[in-house]
Amino acid sequence: MTHLTIGIIGAGRIGKIHADNLLRLPAVRVAAVSDIDAGPELRSWAAARGIGRVCGSGDDVVSDPAIDAVFICSPTDTHAPLIKLAAASGKHIFCEKPVSMNIARTSEAVEAARQAGVRLQVGFNRRFDRNFMRVRDHVRGGTVGEPHIVKITSRDPGPPPERYVKSSGGMFMDMLIHDFDMARFVTGCEVEEVFAQGGVLIDPMFAAHGDVDTAIVTLRFAGGALGVIDASRRAAYGYDQRLEVFGSKGSVTVGNDYPNTAEVSTAAGVSRDKPLHFFLERYMAAYAEEARQFVDGLLRGDPLPVDGDDALRAEAIALAAARSVRLGRPVKVAEAVAAETAGQQGGRQP
Amino acid sequence: MTHLTIGIIGAGRIGKIHADNLLRLPAVRVAAVSDIDAGPELRSWAAARGIGRVCGSGDDVVSDPAIDAVFICSPTDTHAPLIKLAAASGKHIFCEKPVSMNIARTSEAVEAARQAGVRLQVGFNRRFDRNFMRVRDHVRGGTVGEPHIVKITSRDPGPPPERYVKSSGGMFMDMLIHDFDMARFVTGCEVEEVFAQGGVLIDPMFAAHGDVDTAIVTLRFAGGALGVIDASRRAAYGYDQRLEVFGSKGSVTVGNDYPNTAEVSTAAGVSRDKPLHFFLERYMAAYAEEARQFVDGLLRGDPLPVDGDDALRAEAIALAAARSVRLGRPVKVAEAVAAETAGQQGGRQP
Amino acid sequence: MTHLTIGIIGAGRIGKIHADNLLRLPAVRVAAVSDIDAGPELRSWAAARGIGRVCGSGDDVVSDPAIDAVFICSPTDTHAPLIKLAAASGKHIFCEKPVSMNIARTSEAVEAARQAGVRLQVGFNRRFDRNFMRVRDHVRGGTVGEPHIVKITSRDPGPPPERYVKSSGGMFMDMLIHDFDMARFVTGCEVEEVFAQGGVLIDPMFAAHGDVDTAIVTLRFAGGALGVIDASRRAAYGYDQRLEVFGSKGSVTVGNDYPNTAEVSTAAGVSRDKPLHFFLERYMAAYAEEARQFVDGLLRGDPLPVDGDDALRAEAIALAAARSVRLGRPVKVAEAVAAETAGQQGGRQP
Amino acid sequence: MTHLTIGIIGAGRIGKIHADNLLRLPAVRVAAVSDIDAGPELRSWAAARGIGRVCGSGDDVVSDPAIDAVFICSPTDTHAPLIKLAAASGKHIFCEKPVSMNIARTSEAVEAARQAGVRLQVGFNRRFDRNFMRVRDHVRGGTVGEPHIVKITSRDPGPPPERYVKSSGGMFMDMLIHDFDMARFVTGCEVEEVFAQGGVLIDPMFAAHGDVDTAIVTLRFAGGALGVIDASRRAAYGYDQRLEVFGSKGSVTVGNDYPNTAEVSTAAGVSRDKPLHFFLERYMAAYAEEARQFVDGLLRGDPLPVDGDDALRAEAIALAAARSVRLGRPVKVAEAVAAETAGQQGGRQP
Repeated sequence: MTHLTIGIIGAGRIGKIHADNLLRLPAVRVAAVSDIDAGPELRSWAAARGIGRVCGSGDDVVSDPAIDAVFICSPTDTHAPLIKLAAASGKHIFCEKPVSMNIARTSEAVEAARQAGVRLQVGFNRRFDRNFMRVRDHVRGGTVGEPHIVKITSRDPGPPPERYVKSSGGMFMDMLIHDFDMARFVTGCEVEEVFAQGGVLIDPMFAAHGDVDTAIVTLRFAGGALGVIDASRRAAYGYDQRLEVFGSKGSVTVGNDYPNTAEVSTAAGVSRDKPLHFFLERYMAAYAEEARQFVDGLLRGDPLPVDGDDALRAEAIALAAARSVRLGRPVKVAEAVAAETAGQQGGRQP
Repeated sequence: MTHLTIGIIGAGRIGKIHADNLLRLPAVRVAAVSDIDAGPELRSWAAARGIGRVCGSGDDVVSDPAIDAVFICSPTDTHAPLIKLAAASGKHIFCEKPVSMNIARTSEAVEAARQAGVRLQVGFNRRFDRNFMRVRDHVRGGTVGEPHIVKITSRDPGPPPERYVKSSGGMFMDMLIHDFDMARFVTGCEVEEVFAQGGVLIDPMFAAHGDVDTAIVTLRFAGGALGVIDASRRAAYGYDQRLEVFGSKGSVTVGNDYPNTAEVSTAAGVSRDKPLHFFLERYMAAYAEEARQFVDGLLRGDPLPVDGDDALRAEAIALAAARSVRLGRPVKVAEAVAAETAGQQGGRQP
Repeated sequence: MTHLTIGIIGAGRIGKIHADNLLRLPAVRVAAVSDIDAGPELRSWAAARGIGRVCGSGDDVVSDPAIDAVFICSPTDTHAPLIKLAAASGKHIFCEKPVSMNIARTSEAVEAARQAGVRLQVGFNRRFDRNFMRVRDHVRGGTVGEPHIVKITSRDPGPPPERYVKSSGGMFMDMLIHDFDMARFVTGCEVEEVFAQGGVLIDPMFAAHGDVDTAIVTLRFAGGALGVIDASRRAAYGYDQRLEVFGSKGSVTVGNDYPNTAEVSTAAGVSRDKPLHFFLERYMAAYAEEARQFVDGLLRGDPLPVDGDDALRAEAIALAAARSVRLGRPVKVAEAVAAETAGQQGGRQP
Repeated sequence: MTHLTIGIIGAGRIGKIHADNLLRLPAVRVAAVSDIDAGPELRSWAAARGIGRVCGSGDDVVSDPAIDAVFICSPTDTHAPLIKLAAASGKHIFCEKPVSMNIARTSEAVEAARQAGVRLQVGFNRRFDRNFMRVRDHVRGGTVGEPHIVKITSRDPGPPPERYVKSSGGMFMDMLIHDFDMARFVTGCEVEEVFAQGGVLIDPMFAAHGDVDTAIVTLRFAGGALGVIDASRRAAYGYDQRLEVFGSKGSVTVGNDYPNTAEVSTAAGVSRDKPLHFFLERYMAAYAEEARQFVDGLLRGDPLPVDGDDALRAEAIALAAARSVRLGRPVKVAEAVAAETAGQQGGRQP
């Protein structure tokens, strides 16, 4: 394969970002875009980019014989069915995270892709950030020795709207799933046990939906390393995404990115601008790199950088964290998966 | 009172540091020093400083009628008895931490001082560090709003010798007790529940003594704030003591102190020297400030900055952390105290 | 005007960067590109971007009636003639710096554009860097008060090849011209007098061509503020571009940009990666912003952000610096301009 | 010699700092202090420190046979006569900078000490700062290769009072003399030529006394390296003392020292406290190290770290800078010295 024809399913903010990043790659043609709201605005957006086909349904994109691969950027509950459909149609798949909020459904979708022999990449965009990539390189290269402690700070600039909270799957699934993936990514180790403490300190609305807005999650990795994620849905100063891996030979830390390096010193003190405000500012280059690696992997036949197993494992950790908060005790990841599976097969959940 | 005559009990490294800091205060006279090894070396050390009396036992210092206050810097198991003796003799007391490794004994000693009407300050030296003081000021002044998350990094440059580990009371009592106090100090909130995960990743010797060398401790404060301490007995790059308080209006962080600000840029990269190596380098000024505030508090009749209750509370958190590791579940501080008290009264410990 | 058709003259590295940046702007069509070496490689490059016309001469681009504006990215000695030709053809002009190495020629070209009523923007790309823009905003906004001292560090990662040095116009014209423009840009003040000290510390080749490789240039601004630029043709650690404006109310500094924020602490010290290597890495976003503002200014009829007068003034400062090194004394900018004009009209140059 | 008996001449702020630093050295006895205002306050200060003798004149200290060495901390015009007197009495000498404001007088004093065989150290305290020492170590150790450019920032938090300005010898002698010494210290090279630009941007009072308040001084070293010092008598944010040495292999920079490392992030931005306010805060440890090295050098018979030649050379550079401002051109240091000598022998100064 030397060129790739791609269809975009779901033309929200993130679908459009992926489209624009793909359009800059010489080996790619974006041939179709679908959205439930495929009106004049979307048509004009597509026309300006030479995207020939605008559909009202992802199924039309999937069934288009000209298309080699799809980007699934529609709402979460459509991800698993679309993966299965695309797999059946022999299309390669990029799917936004999470695949679903249910391990069994995610598992089925991942399995469908595997059996169909199509490639699947999941949208853990932070793996493509220059800072986190550099951490992983240092860990892999042995700079910090054997990892002992992983620390992740994950704070959003502001809470999501209530309608999102209602169906998001909760803070561990909608927000920390990125951090669970990051913990695996930078260490190359699997998480075995989780203890999560949550609180509602920002807005009682979260409690009303059985969710939390502030959390500390500790992780125990196979091999004995420990991890901790501190998370908040509202940092007054903006997006806060920092990470440290501490090991037998030292540590590597990455801080936030800033809009500029200007530092002002006056009689009032020394100051600089706040960090980049949110994920679109912070991870814009990471999204471009993510799309590029998907395309390169397909064209070269190399393994894709984030696969279905990665999706499953991050979702399982999120499950375990949610269960830990409910039960008030540490929960093994395997226990959480088993409990959910049992629960769906008629068993009781605690 | 306009002047203070002080005796030093225990002339190890820390006792000598306190003596030298006290000698620089115009209102203080250091009149006596005791040590189990009161030989020619100590005599010559004392003579060079104009310290007139050198004794082989702390009891002699305590019973010296010329002395207003004592600094107890002898081994931990002597702290509680010496406090009681000093209280009975009407001496004010500065005692190194911990008071004891047993809540009941600490409690008795603290109570003895209270009933005798003598003042007691406990040696949580980090409270007097310019960085941590600035954090507390910001929190008290409302800069960060209501605290939501407290994060403490506490890593030593290297593990203590095995003979120390045998009787130290374990990592939570010998090392993290400072951090438990710090968590209370910077937030002004009490810790209600602890979950601690420990591992032996550095040296199996720790396991042989029922201790750990790597730990992550999460805290739940009255009022709902969360805290986390990550700790290691060996950071390859030296002493690592950082802290963050994150709240409703923002965050305040403090980093390490460095021997200089030199930054070198060459073809190999950008580099600077490691942080100050250990507590003597890092907290030298804090020790001086600690002694100064003890003396000032006594002379002015103001409350002392760290009292017996502070000692008790930090020890109780350390107990709860050790219990949490043993039981593999979160432990309320009150539960840990009750269990220890019951255990000593004939009950079983889990 | 709602759309702009642009032709690129000179398809070297910088011409291609401008083309790619322009292609991302929806209101722009890149219709033609010319290069003295207009072979198959350039044709294929153009075809992949939908650039319909590939010419061997800039004149063909200028004379193309479909074209609204040209980007002059060919060698320096062609700039002034092409500006005059474009002006005569009624095309708007973006021209790389310097316009020429001769004040009179630059002046004629600028005047030609003015009289023809076409707009001219000169390629001082650093003005569009997020860091330097933030400095200027702070200075304009009064954050630092009245400027007293401007400090610029300007160091390249390595010296240019000898063939470039032969005809570059010297270090002040080929390299520091950016810094002379920057000094004006961030202060909003004009430079009246220059004292330059140069040395050959890196490679004697520079001396052989009457050039220097290391320099410190001090500036005196109208109004009395002082400035200093320190410059080197070889910084072992890469591109070094820092700036400070110090004034009556404080200072604002900007540092280098780095490929990532990773900081590594080991037994050997604390380190991070070198700054971004050279102008392509450091100013990639600035080039995009520069092209965007040129297009926006034309479409909206707003003044362009860097005009012919800016080119003239920076070149005049470069002349004064070169003259100062020759004469070993401070030189007024007006004196340097007068001397050059006189020299070309038959007078002697010192 | 195993012990040293020292007398302090001049009990102003700096004299008292030296006394307190000396009192902490076990090998030192401070036996006498003199001040023109030797009243009850000074007596009580001395008594509290066990300093037995309080005199109204430095001559009494110098002639005290018990005294081995004197610290000359009295006004500048008394330095040279006191050095000569102390030399004649066989006392070793620590003298605050500058020795005098006249090369011939300084030279005579330095020569007197040399011929008398007494040791002389001059008070360039910054050489003992941990940051600048680290820079020199890096330069000497070859980290940055051959020095090409030295950059010094030297800004005071506020201008001195008018009575001081009247007789201070001007900004180059009263303030930048430290920076001239620093330029020599960190490079190990001698300054051959100076070009200084000065301005009066802060307070016209300086112009009334023939002085400046803002300056940029460029230096040319033997061997060809270049240097630049930017200086201001008023930085709104406090004391600003930074330095960089850039060479063939890289650069080393040192920044300011701060009262703490606290960084606050809120909706308003990211901020920290201002740098340490002035020299007493910034260089307190350097003063202690300076006194310690003086004492150590005498006791061990090692060369003292700053000698009379260092004083002479820094004063000569200050002279050249002042002359450069007057003449508006670069001035060789040798020329400035010759002109002053000639001027004092009846010649005219320009």
